[in-house]
Amino acid sequence: MRPHLQYTDNGKLRHFLSIEGLQKETLQQILTTADKFTQFGQRDIKKLPLLRGHTVVNLFFENSSRTRTTFEIAAKRLSADVINLNPGTSSTSKGETLLDTVNILEAMHTDLFVIRHAKSGVAELIARHVPDHVHIINAGDGQHAHPTQAMLDMFTIRQYKGPFNELRVAIVGDILHSRVARSQIHALNTLGVHEIRVVAPNSLLPSQVERLGVHAYNDLKQGLEGVDVVMMLRLQKERMHNAYIPSEQEYFNLYGLTTESLAAAAEDAIIMHPGPINRGLEISSVVADGPRSVILPQVTNGIAVRMAVMAMVLGGEGNG
Amino acid sequence: MRPHLQYTDNGKLRHFLSIEGLQKETLQQILTTADKFTQFGQRDIKKLPLLRGHTVVNLFFENSSRTRTTFEIAAKRLSADVINLNPGTSSTSKGETLLDTVNILEAMHTDLFVIRHAKSGVAELIARHVPDHVHIINAGDGQHAHPTQAMLDMFTIRQYKGPFNELRVAIVGDILHSRVARSQIHALNTLGVHEIRVVAPNSLLPSQVERLGVHAYNDLKQGLEGVDVVMMLRLQKERMHNAYIPSEQEYFNLYGLTTESLAAAAEDAIIMHPGPINRGLEISSVVADGPRSVILPQVTNGIAVRMAVMAMVLGGEGNG
Amino acid sequence: MRPHLQYTDNGKLRHFLSIEGLQKETLQQILTTADKFTQFGQRDIKKLPLLRGHTVVNLFFENSSRTRTTFEIAAKRLSADVINLNPGTSSTSKGETLLDTVNILEAMHTDLFVIRHAKSGVAELIARHVPDHVHIINAGDGQHAHPTQAMLDMFTIRQYKGPFNELRVAIVGDILHSRVARSQIHALNTLGVHEIRVVAPNSLLPSQVERLGVHAYNDLKQGLEGVDVVMMLRLQKERMHNAYIPSEQEYFNLYGLTTESLAAAAEDAIIMHPGPINRGLEISSVVADGPRSVILPQVTNGIAVRMAVMAMVLGGEGNG
Repeated sequence: MRPHLQYTDNGKLRHFLSIEGLQKETLQQILTTADKFTQFGQRDIKKLPLLRGHTVVNLFFENSSRTRTTFEIAAKRLSADVINLNPGTSSTSKGETLLDTVNILEAMHTDLFVIRHAKSGVAELIARHVPDHVHIINAGDGQHAHPTQAMLDMFTIRQYKGPFNELRVAIVGDILHSRVARSQIHALNTLGVHEIRVVAPNSLLPSQVERLGVHAYNDLKQGLEGVDVVMMLRLQKERMHNAYIPSEQEYFNLYGLTTESLAAAAEDAIIMHPGPINRGLEISSVVADGPRSVILPQVTNGIAVRMAVMAMVLGGEGNG
Repeated sequence: MRPHLQYTDNGKLRHFLSIEGLQKETLQQILTTADKFTQFGQRDIKKLPLLRGHTVVNLFFENSSRTRTTFEIAAKRLSADVINLNPGTSSTSKGETLLDTVNILEAMHTDLFVIRHAKSGVAELIARHVPDHVHIINAGDGQHAHPTQAMLDMFTIRQYKGPFNELRVAIVGDILHSRVARSQIHALNTLGVHEIRVVAPNSLLPSQVERLGVHAYNDLKQGLEGVDVVMMLRLQKERMHNAYIPSEQEYFNLYGLTTESLAAAAEDAIIMHPGPINRGLEISSVVADGPRSVILPQVTNGIAVRMAVMAMVLGGEGNG
Repeated sequence: MRPHLQYTDNGKLRHFLSIEGLQKETLQQILTTADKFTQFGQRDIKKLPLLRGHTVVNLFFENSSRTRTTFEIAAKRLSADVINLNPGTSSTSKGETLLDTVNILEAMHTDLFVIRHAKSGVAELIARHVPDHVHIINAGDGQHAHPTQAMLDMFTIRQYKGPFNELRVAIVGDILHSRVARSQIHALNTLGVHEIRVVAPNSLLPSQVERLGVHAYNDLKQGLEGVDVVMMLRLQKERMHNAYIPSEQEYFNLYGLTTESLAAAAEDAIIMHPGPINRGLEISSVVADGPRSVILPQVTNGIAVRMAVMAMVLGGEGNG
């Protein structure tokens, strides 16, 4: 990624494509801005006029009603108009190219595209292409990045565990294919976490993964030893047909988070998961619904963090 | 149903799941509140700020763009933000459980779920589960209940025929499988109608139907004799393949509402139908479009009644 | 079309179904009203309260997320509530008739239906049927008309080329099946353009096309000779299977707009296309993306023109 694609010439956040390439100050600004919106989410009337008259387009080439809903709620709470598009089912199937679709939408004077696509790099490709008044938020591109997910995770860690520089964090599961893990690792490193571990069978670890600034473990209990934060990843069931893992049961036995395997972590460790959960595959229900799980607070924080990023790229909010 | 699941501790309407278990005063309050919104629907600017800053989620596991549209219009006229979800096509197909889906949505600080589901009891299951700030409206669950439909019917009867205690009402069609009929019978009984009749072949009547407080008829003309209100039900065509009725033509001959069969009813009887109509199957076009049909006023009243229920569960409206 | 179906008794625009039957003054009023909204689209806060409290229903029997999006954005910028319906997938599949669907929606006190349908005449059929307070905009019906597309084209021509009465315009492509071409020809004639040419193989020209007030050409270069405006049509690929054209390559060789074929037109001719573009079939990328292409301004103008038509039929805007 070009170093400054995500910033304007005078250092304002213009696009939000990837944690990689962002300064520590920007991540901290997102967390601080989201703080304000979190308090706001508890009010009775959850409506701010910040983005009134702006049009947010949820452009989900890859379907995800859950992530789309969080962006839709965040945008509406900021009083934006929201257009939901799932171009897979319409114009691109008429043979229109990706950039034609984007050109058309920006010609309608829309202001912000929230883009999800099954191919890595699509959000960046579009960001390179759009004129100054259009902003791009990456809502997940292939196996590359899912930066708003990573930032809601950082927000949740800070909320429950305090300063990053004293924390040990383990990310468990399919690191190899996970855009979530990639963004989490960049965010944890940028914010100066004490130690990041990744835990997975070798078949689900990128080669030379340690270059990302992490320690790799094949054994779950060793990987969880003493950590303050356990970040589980969702296992795509289709991986099993591709021979990355032997069977659901065997995977759960070795890498599933249960009361037993969790015992290795610090006593007050929190459990995170980006959802949706495969109960009994990567996590047991007892742990997912237990007192140390912060899976639902992650969802709540996701609204505030997405409001913060939208407000920062579109308005002056949090820029100063 | 637990007697007080639908009320808060101090007697306010919290959820709207089923007419069964509601007090007469609550039904009357819905009718009175809807009165105000009916007048409002005729104004040029149909927008009230009552639910501004609230988020209504239309969670339609069973698809129905018509019912969904009435709730969407009602919520938007009250200035709520509306999120439409059809989870059948997304997260639950990823293996997420029903309650996980609901947990996620309530974690987003949404306030009201309008739920339709093909299985009886789902709205109640969810209502038992959600925290205090979340409210549930049942938009139809299996063969159990469709209480907003019943209340718009009550509103329409009151509008055209006056006090309930002098009225004879016939419900005609597939009583056995109809959530609409079940809710109508509870509402009519609660509001103290003089007499309720159900008219259907035995194959489409619940066993011991008279326990519901109705008189059963197999003969249409006898059932309609002297009634003030004829409430037709929609016949699900798939019933025919299941041998509940012999053939479309034979069903129409015996139970179809025509000018001829209608002659048995009171001269000023009104004709109701929840829609969509099967013309020529349960009702003739002449009757459906005739001067005694109040099918379209039912639709109009449906908006006002749904606004009333939303305002009552979410706000102070109609609660005193 | 009945001459005055589109006007109220005192000459106000009531429906917008077809350019045919509209007075020159009405078309000019649309252009003037859209002028105001174009300037507005460049503002930071793109929200006007003109249609606040009104409900616009996008009733797209034929799917088109692109055209639907332009109407949705236009309506929301005027502060209307918008309901998107694709009835092909719901009630009409339950056996409800077209007019039942419309009756139901108008009973909900909705104000404006934007209708797209694969059959010619549907928008008019519905307009004849609805009560006074309901307004219809035709967003494309079969091979009949697409009047908002034609008006955004007129707006774009006026913007770039000035007075109509001095202009030569060529429409190139599948004239025979095109609702766009039909509406363009009526609009250009009504606004008094100097000359209209249609360019296509005979298999894609209506018989006796000259009766529409155009000159027909089979040869592209002859047809483009000296024209000020080149309006390309989208070629439906399914036409090829129906033997209207021999092959994609052969069609492009004869009728594709390229730098070479465009050389016949006036030096400052503009290039238009309603989208989506089939690159390399009816137009080369070099021309579509070149300096004389106004394809994206057409999209931008489409929002302003649709806002103008909505404001005129629903409000007093532009009337009087």
